[in-house]
Formats: sequence, C-alpha cells, structure tokens
Amino acid sequence: MRRMVRLQEVAGRAGVSVSTVSNVVNGRTDRMNPDLLARVQCAIDELGYQPNRAARFLKTGHTPLIGLLVPSIANPIYGSLAREVEVAAQEAHGYRILVGNTYRDPQKEKQFLDDLLSHGIRGVIIVSPLLEQDHFRDAIKRGLVAVSYDRRLVPGPSLDVDYVSMDNAAAARIAVEHLVEHGHRRIAYVTASGRTVSRLDKIDGFRAAARAAGLDNAEIIEDEALSEFGDAEMAQLGRALVRTVAERGNRPTGIVAMNDMMAIGLVLGLQAGGLRVPDDVSVIGIDDMFLAGIIEPGITTVRLPLQAMARTMVDRIVHRLQHPQSATEQFTFPSHLVVRGSVATVGREGSVRPVRATS
Amino acid sequence: MRRMVRLQEVAGRAGVSVSTVSNVVNGRTDRMNPDLLARVQCAIDELGYQPNRAARFLKTGHTPLIGLLVPSIANPIYGSLAREVEVAAQEAHGYRILVGNTYRDPQKEKQFLDDLLSHGIRGVIIVSPLLEQDHFRDAIKRGLVAVSYDRRLVPGPSLDVDYVSMDNAAAARIAVEHLVEHGHRRIAYVTASGRTVSRLDKIDGFRAAARAAGLDNAEIIEDEALSEFGDAEMAQLGRALVRTVAERGNRPTGIVAMNDMMAIGLVLGLQAGGLRVPDDVSVIGIDDMFLAGIIEPGITTVRLPLQAMARTMVDRIVHRLQHPQSATEQFTFPSHLVVRGSVATVGREGSVRPVRATS
Repeated sequence: MRRMVRLQEVAGRAGVSVSTVSNVVNGRTDRMNPDLLARVQCAIDELGYQPNRAARFLKTGHTPLIGLLVPSIANPIYGSLAREVEVAAQEAHGYRILVGNTYRDPQKEKQFLDDLLSHGIRGVIIVSPLLEQDHFRDAIKRGLVAVSYDRRLVPGPSLDVDYVSMDNAAAARIAVEHLVEHGHRRIAYVTASGRTVSRLDKIDGFRAAARAAGLDNAEIIEDEALSEFGDAEMAQLGRALVRTVAERGNRPTGIVAMNDMMAIGLVLGLQAGGLRVPDDVSVIGIDDMFLAGIIEPGITTVRLPLQAMARTMVDRIVHRLQHPQSATEQFTFPSHLVVRGSVATVGREGSVRPVRATS
Repeated sequence: MRRMVRLQEVAGRAGVSVSTVSNVVNGRTDRMNPDLLARVQCAIDELGYQPNRAARFLKTGHTPLIGLLVPSIANPIYGSLAREVEVAAQEAHGYRILVGNTYRDPQKEKQFLDDLLSHGIRGVIIVSPLLEQDHFRDAIKRGLVAVSYDRRLVPGPSLDVDYVSMDNAAAARIAVEHLVEHGHRRIAYVTASGRTVSRLDKIDGFRAAARAAGLDNAEIIEDEALSEFGDAEMAQLGRALVRTVAERGNRPTGIVAMNDMMAIGLVLGLQAGGLRVPDDVSVIGIDDMFLAGIIEPGITTVRLPLQAMARTMVDRIVHRLQHPQSATEQFTFPSHLVVRGSVATVGREGSVRPVRATS
C-alpha cells in the first residue's frame, strides 16, 4: 500500500493553495485557469494522491457510465489510456466506462454515439481525427457531453467540447533539443503519414526546433502504415523505414520518432541491419509507454502525462454533466524528458559516446 | 476489404454440415458437442467469416450490454481480448461491452458485479483466479449469466458458468515437443509463481511432456512478479529470471516461458547478458501476442486462439440470456505452434543450428 498523500502536499508541490486543490479534486474547475488546473493534476499524479471516493460518490441509485471511443483498445497506448480513465472515473466519481472500438470509421463512430444516447449515457471521451465531422456535431446537439483526447482546438468552426491534449509541438521540441545538446547536427523525424492534428503539431515542433538550432538539413521521413488499428503496426512501420534512414547518403545521427512504438521498430530494425543504437544512430521516442523501458537499449523518450490527462477528462465530463451551462475549455499538458539509453553524444570529430541514463 | 467468405466454406473447413455452422452462427449451440463447436469457431476464425449482423440485430430498443471483468485492460493480452470480445459482441449480436479493471481484488470484483446488476446488465465475461469465491457465487444467484475465461472447471463444488479456455497443458506440451524435436535435452520452464489454474495446467503439461521424452532433469524456474496488473511486469520478471537461468551449472539449452511477455523478457535479458538467442539458448513462448513477431529474433510460440474463444464466450452469453434454462458447458480450445526464430537445433556434439521460420 502506498502512504496516504495529503491535500497540503499536493498544494505545496503545485505551488497553489489547499482550497485550489480541493476545488480541483471536487470538480469545481469551471472558472479555473487551464494551466493552473493542469499543474494541480500533474502534482496529484506525481504524488499519487487518492481522493476519498466515498465522500464524493454520487447517490444516483446506480453507477453512472461514461463512453470511451477509441480506434482500438488493443493498441497498447489506448489500453493504458482506458485503464487510467477507468481508475479516474471509478475512484473519484464512481463512474464505469463503456468502450467502443471504432477504427476511425465514421459509421462505427456514429453507431457508438447513437448507442450511448440510447442507453442514456451522456458523457463520452473521444479519440478520433474525425472530430469535426457531422456525426460528432449531431450527437453533441442531441445532448452528449464530450471531451476530445489528443486533438487540440483547430482554427475554423469549433465544436462545443473540451480539448485535452499534450503539447505535441513542445514534446517534439524537447526531443530535438536533447539531440542537439548531445552534438547531433544531422537529424530526422520519422512518422506515419496520416495527417492528424497531433502528428502535424509534432512535425511543426520538430521543424521549428531544428531551425532554431540552425539545422537546415533536418528532414521528415514518412510512409503509410499498413493499418493503424492493431497493435504493432507502428513498430512494423518503424522497422520498414529503417531502410530509408540507412540508405541516406548522409545518414542522420539522431532520429526523433513520432511515438515509442515507432522508436522501438526503428531500434530493432537498425540493430537487425547491423547498426548500433545509440553508437551509430541515436533514437528518441514520444509517450514513455511500458515497452520503452524493456528493450535494449531502453528508449529515451518524452513522457505523455496519461494519468493527469485521464483525470482531467473524467473530471470535466462529470463537472459539465452537473453544470450543463458551463463553458468548454482547452487543456494542454506539458511533457518532460525521460532519459534511458538510446541517445549518444556526438563528439567534435564525429565520435560517439553513449549518454548515461538518469532515470 | 477482405473477400466475402461463405457458410459453405466454413462447413468444409470444419468438416461439418452447413446447418451446423448456421446453428453456431445463430447461437443455437445448446445441445452441441463442445469440441464440435470449438472446431466450427476455429474455422470461422481462420477463414475470417463475417456473419450478417443486420439480420440478427436484436430489436430491443437499445443495444444490450455485456460486462468484461479483467485484471487490467492495460495488459496487452487483455487489451487484445477486449477488442476481440467487442468485435464479436458488436458484429454478431449488436452488444456493447462495459470494462471493469479489478486487479484480482475481491472488493473491486464485487463492486463491478454489483454495478452490472444495478444497470440491468446480466451477462459478464470473467477473467479472475477468484472465480469460486462468494462474490461470484452470489452475483450468479442474483441472475448474472457468466462465462469464465482461461480457467477451466476444477474439481470441487462448481459454479454455474460456462468455462472457455485454451488447453493450457497441451500448449506447454507442444512447446516441449518442439524443443525435444530439435535435440534439446536440458530444458526449463520459467513462470511467475502465482498459482492460477491455467498456470498450473501449463506446468503439468510441461512436466508430463518432459517425462514422456525421458528428460528427468527438466526444471521449473519461478519467482514472484512485483505486480501483475500492469503492462510489462511479466517481461521484467523474465529479464530478472535470466540470472537464475544463466547461473545454472548445467545451463538449459531450451526454455519454455509461461507466456510471450515472459519470453520477450528472457530473450532481451539473455542478449543483454551476452548470450545469443537461439544459438546459446532457445526460448519458446505461449500466446502469439503481437510483440512476439517484432523483437529480434521473433519468438517461436504456441498460439492462443483468442478470436475464436471471444466469439464463443459472447455467443454463450447471448444464448443463455435468451434461454435461461440451458445448461452450462466447458469449452477447451486447441492451440498450435507458430515457428519464428527463437529456437535452434542442438546437434549430437552440442553444436547449434538456428531453425528456419515457416510462418
């Protein structure tokens, strides 16, 4: 059992008052600054604070439900998301979750939304690049309270949903800066070519950081995944793209991968092709999924704050179900570097020295 | 899009009549021989037969729900199970699934069962070693229709549930026989020490097959996982157990791992310790999870027929909800070998030659 963490400690960690933490824990976040809320959620996350569930269980006669619409629960990152969402929903509010795998197919998405409404379920967390399409718009008009995961607000007619995402541009920037700090001057970004908002943000963040470091030759290497709904497609695409990387006349010394599964595929593919990671090529991922720490070398990565984001999404849905007139918000979560063993230092003469892991 | 598969092809593959396949597809499996049903489900699985959902959607006004009780949806094997269950429930019957992560904690399991009943949900798939405990017994008395996954009927007072599992003893036997066929005489079984029925069955299968091959020195190597509810604990345990394996005076040449995550941990740990897989040590897993094909070498494994098992579980629940008087059954699914690159042939003088992958 972990030690009980007190509200005061969370307040101290986040640099806010106890009453602010109390407001967050009790869902009174309506007029709260989104950055402040994100900071408190991160402190709750880092300290492992457990709100007293019994005190806030809603006496509705039965446990309320929240829908979770994902491309595929078999993708490990969505499996982890589903667990964090369920824990947050259960422990803080006594909610249960209904999972729908929709494979980014508008028909399946529409059917899931219809089913939620027909069950009287009015809260849903949406993981979909199709958010602006009519089926979401219609369901929201019919009373669905929605939070969009990992897709920030984009210019144009917006939807009345909360947006909860990591700062994807900043995550890619952090990755580039880590490579640049370790002497890398020839870097590449490897991505699947489907153009979701979060993927575009990462590409923009990569390009901007490379420009800021004076790396005009930084390049984007991409290809289509065979499918994006399974488990290992991104790792397979990473392995397939190794050939493109390795055949470059002026091979990059450092690669930023769009996510950890892609990074894992790249590392395994480079090794299978006889190149050493990090000695010949450094690779850095984004997510900090569980596999990043298991393969050899461990993947240096930029951490997606999944637990804090899950808690915010659930809190927002519960809050807006209780306060239908409250305005929707956008929440952008900071990420941070997790150093393992997949990045080396490039010396003046091009010599390479592995970086010692600090966490 | 895949080609439409016809009922006739399924019947041919399974060696049964078209009307038998039709009975399976339409849930009329009450008096059907469990082995026959398993054979038809495997044929449906292998051919990718898609039943016509529209023709059998239940006109109940809203989509019915099935509960799925798992230790943790973040464990990739349960994420894959959840996807297969949801696909089977959706496509064949128009059902949705409600997921509960219960961490093998009886309190959390009881709470989930209570919540299902309070929502009027009367069907549940249970993944738990605590099946015989009172909270399950009570919920079934209160009308819950349950299927137990991966835990066969055990001697003693049984529960009125369907049991759907792989033949775990046979899976371990297949793994041992593959090693023996390739000349291995010093083999070990590596497992987490929690004694679930399926783990005990695998150990029994390993021991019996080793005895049958005259290997009296076959040993069980085990330790406790730090936790069993996360994602990568089994891989971490596999890595940790490499020391025990490698320090044996008479090191085994072939290892059977209790599952693929454990096998992956073993392979990565052996490699990190300077041993080659399969040249120095062969490793074979059980499950055929997606990661087995990604690491280098690919893991040779015994395949868990997840899709066919998921379909059977959903069909049984729907059938028994419609026919409350029908008897419960036990279904045991066969498994088969998937050869990749992690097993080598040991020659007469102890020399080793890698086995070519056939799939």
